Amino acid sequence: MSIVVVGSVALDSVQTPSGCVEEELGGSASYFSLAASLYGEVRLLAVVGDDFPARHVHCLRERGIDLSGLQVAEGRTFRWKGCYEGDLNTAITLDTQLNVFSQFHPTLPEACREPSCLFLANIDPDLQLEVLSQIGGAGLTAADTMDFWIQRKKDSLTRVFCRVDMVVINEAEAKEYADTRNVVAAARGILALGPKAVVVKRGEYGCALFTDSGYFVAPAYPLEHVQDPTGAGDTFAGGLIGYLAQAGEASPAVVRRAILHGSAVASFAVEDFGVRRLLTLSGSEVVARCRELREFTYLEGI
Amino acid sequence: MSIVVVGSVALDSVQTPSGCVEEELGGSASYFSLAASLYGEVRLLAVVGDDFPARHVHCLRERGIDLSGLQVAEGRTFRWKGCYEGDLNTAITLDTQLNVFSQFHPTLPEACREPSCLFLANIDPDLQLEVLSQIGGAGLTAADTMDFWIQRKKDSLTRVFCRVDMVVINEAEAKEYADTRNVVAAARGILALGPKAVVVKRGEYGCALFTDSGYFVAPAYPLEHVQDPTGAGDTFAGGLIGYLAQAGEASPAVVRRAILHGSAVASFAVEDFGVRRLLTLSGSEVVARCRELREFTYLEGI
Repeated sequence: MSIVVVGSVALDSVQTPSGCVEEELGGSASYFSLAASLYGEVRLLAVVGDDFPARHVHCLRERGIDLSGLQVAEGRTFRWKGCYEGDLNTAITLDTQLNVFSQFHPTLPEACREPSCLFLANIDPDLQLEVLSQIGGAGLTAADTMDFWIQRKKDSLTRVFCRVDMVVINEAEAKEYADTRNVVAAARGILALGPKAVVVKRGEYGCALFTDSGYFVAPAYPLEHVQDPTGAGDTFAGGLIGYLAQAGEASPAVVRRAILHGSAVASFAVEDFGVRRLLTLSGSEVVARCRELREFTYLEGI
Repeated sequence: MSIVVVGSVALDSVQTPSGCVEEELGGSASYFSLAASLYGEVRLLAVVGDDFPARHVHCLRERGIDLSGLQVAEGRTFRWKGCYEGDLNTAITLDTQLNVFSQFHPTLPEACREPSCLFLANIDPDLQLEVLSQIGGAGLTAADTMDFWIQRKKDSLTRVFCRVDMVVINEAEAKEYADTRNVVAAARGILALGPKAVVVKRGEYGCALFTDSGYFVAPAYPLEHVQDPTGAGDTFAGGLIGYLAQAGEASPAVVRRAILHGSAVASFAVEDFGVRRLLTLSGSEVVARCRELREFTYLEGI
């Protein structure tokens, strides 16, 4: 099995009611990789600038992530600065500097053109399409996005959704894409484009899986103290895709379990700032939390 | 078994994106009673004015609801006018006329001072306390409330929460009451007052049960077309308390099943305006939807 992820590696500065961090390791591909690396081999495709701290490279490499596809370009690394208030559900972006990311074109090495799973993390959908055109075949392809691309590159994004097996998307963004206020209508609208599954991320409300044949809901782990929700969605996707790659199949029962894993891994991540908790997280801790999550919806009879 | 509910019976005028109705049967006790009557004998304590249409009395009586505690006072019936926009999650109140409700004092007939279950629907917490003081003993007592009372009568409301077995409350109101933005902290804060269970209603996200020993999450039924969410919370409570009264016990497994019933009954109610769907709903339809809801969270292993 092998997982390939294409996305961003960034330096994040984040403020939440619990505290703040400056220029810590961030970006969709970082969170995804660290989560997915609990399940197997992950190859990360992204770009950083020549100012990217060696300690961050070390963090990723220590978790066994293959960085041979991490380009180092002349210039500054992508930076994001944001804060959270109140219920922590929505990030307020204070500053975005694309820097070297603005010139990024992912190139898949020959060795990873047939991965078990390919995850197109939130980047320009035109880049997601470039990657899809380089893929010889993949066990499973999945894509995420964000409001920025829905508003600016909807046609390209639609082409991505038409070509992947699974769309993993925030609830608000699914509704925005499908131009509806109803999440069921939104998911069905995306499903009609071709993907076999649409996974709608609902933050503290967990997530919902829509397929042609079924519907599944997984709770979020009930946390009294969330430190930093940054990257929760990418971490969720890492647990989900990681589990699917390890299982080597995507039957309905396996996809349900994979979603539970995604929810569990993400719940650990938000208990500390940035990627910190992911650096020490073990598979057995994830399995224990999955058992708890399962218990939260368990019913004897009706 | 017997269920007693104290709350409002109103004439509702409602506008939603799907249409509108004028002076239809509404009020927390109406929705609750119609839902709970699927499970057994319900006695409704409320007040209406002498303008209350006979056809509404007929509707309630046809479903077997005991109206011997429905006072008819000189004057006009309580009226509520509201509308919903966008995602239908929040009602916008356009007009409230308490009318005869402002002088209401519930009096429990001797025959119903030891019910299997007592539900204190959303009314002035001082009236809820009056009812509690008249009760000789009840298998289970539960109470709901709303932001209006949290803002104006928090001390009385706290006394209610200290004296009931179960608090059934909207998420936003639980957070407002406990002065926190975190739902887990809010529920634990209310639980610390004494109730054995706090059921947090989360609208389209389903509901969460908090007890000292456990946590349970039930999904809402995924509906693409919600006609009118008015009364969904009271309907949910009716299904929940109705099931508990019928079961005659409130073990953890039974409470979980009861919550599923509440969710199922509420999902039918919002598919039509006002109480309409509740007037034709059958127990077997509810059970079939409970089976579906159970399937939505079913996991084989992890």
